[in-house]
Amino acid sequence: MGVGHSSVSLSLDPISIAAFTAKPKPKTSCFVNTHCRRSVFPTKRVSLFVDFSLKFESLKCGTVAGEMDTEKGIDVANKSILDFHDIDERLIRKMEFDALVWSSLHGLVVGDRNFQRSGQVPGVGMVHAPIALLPMSFPKSHWKQACELAPIFNELIDRISLDGKFLQDSLSRTKKVDAFTSRLLDIHSKMLEMNKKEEIRLGLHRSDYMLDEETKLFLQIELNTISSSFPGLGCLVTELHRTLLNEYGEDLGLDSKKIPSNTAVGQFSEALAKAWTEYNNPRAVVLVVVQTEERNMYDQHWLCTMLKERHNVRTVRKTLAEIDREGQLLPDGTLLVDGQAIAVVYFRAGYAPTDYPSESEWRSRLLMEQSSAIKCPSISYHLAGSKKIQQELAKPNILERFLENKEDIVKLQKCFAGLWSLDDLDIIRKAIDKPELFVMKPQREGGGNNIYGNDVKETLLRLQKEGSEEDAAYILMQRIFPTVSPTILMRDGICHKEHAISELGIYSAYLRNKEKVIMNDQCGYLMRTKIASSNEGGVAAGFAVLDSIYLT
Amino acid sequence: MGVGHSSVSLSLDPISIAAFTAKPKPKTSCFVNTHCRRSVFPTKRVSLFVDFSLKFESLKCGTVAGEMDTEKGIDVANKSILDFHDIDERLIRKMEFDALVWSSLHGLVVGDRNFQRSGQVPGVGMVHAPIALLPMSFPKSHWKQACELAPIFNELIDRISLDGKFLQDSLSRTKKVDAFTSRLLDIHSKMLEMNKKEEIRLGLHRSDYMLDEETKLFLQIELNTISSSFPGLGCLVTELHRTLLNEYGEDLGLDSKKIPSNTAVGQFSEALAKAWTEYNNPRAVVLVVVQTEERNMYDQHWLCTMLKERHNVRTVRKTLAEIDREGQLLPDGTLLVDGQAIAVVYFRAGYAPTDYPSESEWRSRLLMEQSSAIKCPSISYHLAGSKKIQQELAKPNILERFLENKEDIVKLQKCFAGLWSLDDLDIIRKAIDKPELFVMKPQREGGGNNIYGNDVKETLLRLQKEGSEEDAAYILMQRIFPTVSPTILMRDGICHKEHAISELGIYSAYLRNKEKVIMNDQCGYLMRTKIASSNEGGVAAGFAVLDSIYLT
Repeated sequence: MGVGHSSVSLSLDPISIAAFTAKPKPKTSCFVNTHCRRSVFPTKRVSLFVDFSLKFESLKCGTVAGEMDTEKGIDVANKSILDFHDIDERLIRKMEFDALVWSSLHGLVVGDRNFQRSGQVPGVGMVHAPIALLPMSFPKSHWKQACELAPIFNELIDRISLDGKFLQDSLSRTKKVDAFTSRLLDIHSKMLEMNKKEEIRLGLHRSDYMLDEETKLFLQIELNTISSSFPGLGCLVTELHRTLLNEYGEDLGLDSKKIPSNTAVGQFSEALAKAWTEYNNPRAVVLVVVQTEERNMYDQHWLCTMLKERHNVRTVRKTLAEIDREGQLLPDGTLLVDGQAIAVVYFRAGYAPTDYPSESEWRSRLLMEQSSAIKCPSISYHLAGSKKIQQELAKPNILERFLENKEDIVKLQKCFAGLWSLDDLDIIRKAIDKPELFVMKPQREGGGNNIYGNDVKETLLRLQKEGSEEDAAYILMQRIFPTVSPTILMRDGICHKEHAISELGIYSAYLRNKEKVIMNDQCGYLMRTKIASSNEGGVAAGFAVLDSIYLT
Repeated sequence: MGVGHSSVSLSLDPISIAAFTAKPKPKTSCFVNTHCRRSVFPTKRVSLFVDFSLKFESLKCGTVAGEMDTEKGIDVANKSILDFHDIDERLIRKMEFDALVWSSLHGLVVGDRNFQRSGQVPGVGMVHAPIALLPMSFPKSHWKQACELAPIFNELIDRISLDGKFLQDSLSRTKKVDAFTSRLLDIHSKMLEMNKKEEIRLGLHRSDYMLDEETKLFLQIELNTISSSFPGLGCLVTELHRTLLNEYGEDLGLDSKKIPSNTAVGQFSEALAKAWTEYNNPRAVVLVVVQTEERNMYDQHWLCTMLKERHNVRTVRKTLAEIDREGQLLPDGTLLVDGQAIAVVYFRAGYAPTDYPSESEWRSRLLMEQSSAIKCPSISYHLAGSKKIQQELAKPNILERFLENKEDIVKLQKCFAGLWSLDDLDIIRKAIDKPELFVMKPQREGGGNNIYGNDVKETLLRLQKEGSEEDAAYILMQRIFPTVSPTILMRDGICHKEHAISELGIYSAYLRNKEKVIMNDQCGYLMRTKIASSNEGGVAAGFAVLDSIYLT
C-alpha cells in the first residue's frame, strides 16, 4: 500500500505518520542495564497483559493455548546483539556518510516534502529515503515462521475472494457506517450480479507482523492486499546494510551474511510479467494506477524499471481520474486507456477514501473491474484484506471454511492477535476496564486513525450511550507491546540516536490461471522501524524509517 | 576540473557558467532550410575567417598548411542525422519521463542550487544532472582523431613536467601579473630547489575540443591536468542515451550501438588504484581534496565508490584547510592526514584562486607537494596544463623539445588553434582590426573570464596605451565557430528545445613509476552541450548540459 496506508507509514510528513497498533515500552524502563555491548530488556514484567490477552486469544481467536512455553525458548535470541548507541562516534560518522552516498547513487530516494514538485515530476527535489543506519536484530525462528505463512495467506486470500457471500455478509454492518467500504461493496455486488469471473488472479501482498515482547508471540498486524509499498526501496535498504556490514562488520562484530537476501522487487516484477504473459496480448501493457502526487514514486519506478529491463514489459502510469477520461471497454472486455490495451492493472492508488474525491474515480474503478484486464488486486482481493475480514477470520471455525490443511490453519491462528467486533459485550466491558490493553481500529484505511488508551474507554462509552450502528465501523485488537531497541535513524541527512520499535512486512505473490497456480511465493521483506517515543494516546510522535533485519 | 572551471562549465548557477571560446553562428542564419529531417547548414559562408586563421596558423602555430583540403572530406558526416526538434511531441514526453526516472534511480544527480545544504551533505537536495535528452551527432573520423591524441598529450605533459626551466621561463612574465600562477610557481621553485623527484607520476587529464564549422578543423580548447570533472556522470549520460535508444531508437531512426562506450570512471578508478599499488603501503588511502561546498559531489562519489568496490581502495575527503590542520609530514616523507597515511592525493579542488582564501590553503598545498604521496596532479603537471603553456606549445619548434616522434608532433599541431602571446604586434594589430575573430583568455583559471568581440579591441587598445606588463596575463586565441544543432536539453525536470553548440572532452590516464610506463590510455569522453544563444560579448546566456555522442 502507499505511503500513509500501513500501520507504520513511511510518510515524510509527520502529520500523516500512522499510529502503530503497538505501544512501545516506556523509555525509562528500558536499557537500564546495558552492559557487554548488549541491550538488556527490563527484568520486571507486568504479567497482567500476558495472562489477560492469552486467555482471550484461546477463548476467542483460536490461538493454540500453551504456545507461550514453546515461544519462551526464543527469548535469548531475540536480544539485539549490539547496542548501536555504544558504537564509536567516528565510526558512526563514517557509516552515516557512506550510507548517504550509497543511497544517492543507488536510487534509494524519495521526493522531499519541502520541495513543491517532488511528488509530481521525477528527478527533482529528491532526498535519500529515511533509513535505519544498521539492520534490526530479529529472531531467525520468527523469520522462518513469517516466510512459511506467506503462501498460506496467499491461498487464503484467493479462497476468500471466491466467496462473494462471505465478503458481503461479513461487511454488511460495516457497509452501513463506512461509505468507502460501501462503495467497494457496491462494485463487488455488481460483479456478482454480472457473474464476472476472474480467471487470472494476481495478488501482490504484504503481511505485517510485530513481535510482542511480553509473550514472545509473533503477531499479524494486518495483511495488505492492495498497493503493498516499498518492494523497491526495501530491497535497496537490505543491499545498503549488507554493503555497510561488508565494510564495517568487523568493527561492529556483525556479519553481513546474517542479513537475509531481499528479492521483493525482482519477484514482484516477475509476478507482474507472468501475469502479463498469461493475459497473452503482446501489445498490451501494465497500467500502474497512481495518485496525483506521490513522493514515494521511486519505489514504484524501481518495479517498473525491472519489469521493463528484465521482462521487456512496458508500463503506463495513470491516475484514476485520467483512466476515467481516457479509458474505454471494448465489447470483448479489453480495457483500453488512451488507446492502449491493458493486460494488468496494478494499483498503487485507490486504497483510501481520499483517492476518490469525485464520482470520476469511482467510475474509473468500476470500468477497470468490469474489464478482462488482470486486476492487482481485484475488488474481491481488496475487500479480503480489510480489517473487518481480518477480525472475522480470527473467529473460531472460520478459517476451516477456506482451508483444508489443519497444519496451515494452526500456523495462521498462531499469528492472529486478539481481534473482536464491537458486538461482543464481554470484550467491551474488559476494554472499558483496561483500555491500555486494546487498540480500536476503524475500518477505513489510511493510518493515523487508530484509538489508544483512555480514548478507547471514552469512545466505547459514547457508542454504548448513543446505541447507534457506528460501532460496526470499528474492531478491537489486542494491543501489542513490541521490543524497544536502541537504533540510529537517518532522515534529511541527519542522524538520530533513538529508541525504536519495528514491524516486519513479508511480501508474497500469488498468480493463478483457472486451476493452475503459477506462482505462490514469499518474496522478500520490509522492516520498518519507528521512534518509540509516544504521547499518552500512543500515537506516533516520531517518524518511521526503512530497515532490514539481522537474524539472530 | 570542478564545476565552473572548464570552458563549458556545468554549473547550475547561471552566474558561474563560463564562456565558450567559441562563438555560435547567429541563430537566424541557421536551420533556414531544414528538410528531410536533417539540419542543413547555411550555404553562404564568410570565407574570410578560414583564410585568415589558417594563414596565422601556418605562420605561427606550426599547423600544417593545406590540411583544409583533407578536412573538407568530413563535411557530410558532420551533419546531424536528425533534427531533434522534429520529433513527435508524445515521443519526447515519453523519453523525457524515462530520462528523469533513469537519472534518479542510477545516481545521475547533482546538488540542487536552490537547496541550501545540497553542496555540503550527500543525500539531500538532489536533482537530476542537467542533460541532453539525446546524444549529439559527431563525426567518427574526429572521434578517432581525438582518441589517438590522448596518449600523445599524456606523454607530452609528463615530459614538460620534467622540464622545470621551461615551465619557469614560459610563465615568468605571467608570474608578474597573475598572483595565483605566481604562488603555484613559488611551490614549483621550492621543489626545484629541494631537487624533489616525483618518481611515480599520475595524470588524469581531459582534453577539450571543438569542431570549427567553417574549416571543419577539430581544435583543442584546453587541456585540463587538474580536477578533470564528470568522469562519473559522463559515463552515466552515455548509459542513459543508450538505454533511450534501445527503447526508442527505431522510432528515431537511431542505433544505440553508434554511441561509443564510455569507461571514464572505470579507467580513472583503475589508474588511481594502480597508483595506490605502486605506492606500496596497504594501509594508506587516497586523499580526495575537495571544496567546502560541492554540488557536483556525486560525480566524485562515483569515482570513489568504484575505487572501493572494484579495487578495495579507501578514500578520505578533506578540504585544503582541513589538510592544513590535520596534515603532517613524517621524516621519511609520508603524508599523514588525521593520522592516516596517504598514498595518492587526488585534487578535485585547488585549481582556482578562490580555492585559496587564506595562507592555510597554500600551506596545505605545499605540504602535500613536499610529501612522498603521489600527487594527481603534481605542481608540475598542474602548471603544464596552464593556458600560457598551451600557447607556448603552439609556437614553432617547441613541441620538438619534448617529443621525438614526428608523426605525433604533426597530430598535435593539427589540433592546435591559433594561439598567440600579446607581445606579437602583428597579431595585436589584426585583433584590433577584426576582434570578432579572436578570444582574449586570461591566464587565471575558472571560466567566465574570457573577452570577446569589441571588448577584445578595447582591452588591447587600453593595454597598448598603458604600456604595463598586464598584457602578460592574457593570451589571444583564434575564435572557433562551432556547428549549431537543434537539441533537447533538460534541467530541473523541464525540457527545453534549443539550438546548441558542443565541446568534446577526451579523458586520459597516465601512470609511470621511474622509467616504467604503467598506463597511458584514452579513457572515455564527455560531451558538453550548451545553448547557443549568446549576448554580444559571446558570453553564455544559457546553460550547459552533459551529453554523449552519436558517431556519424
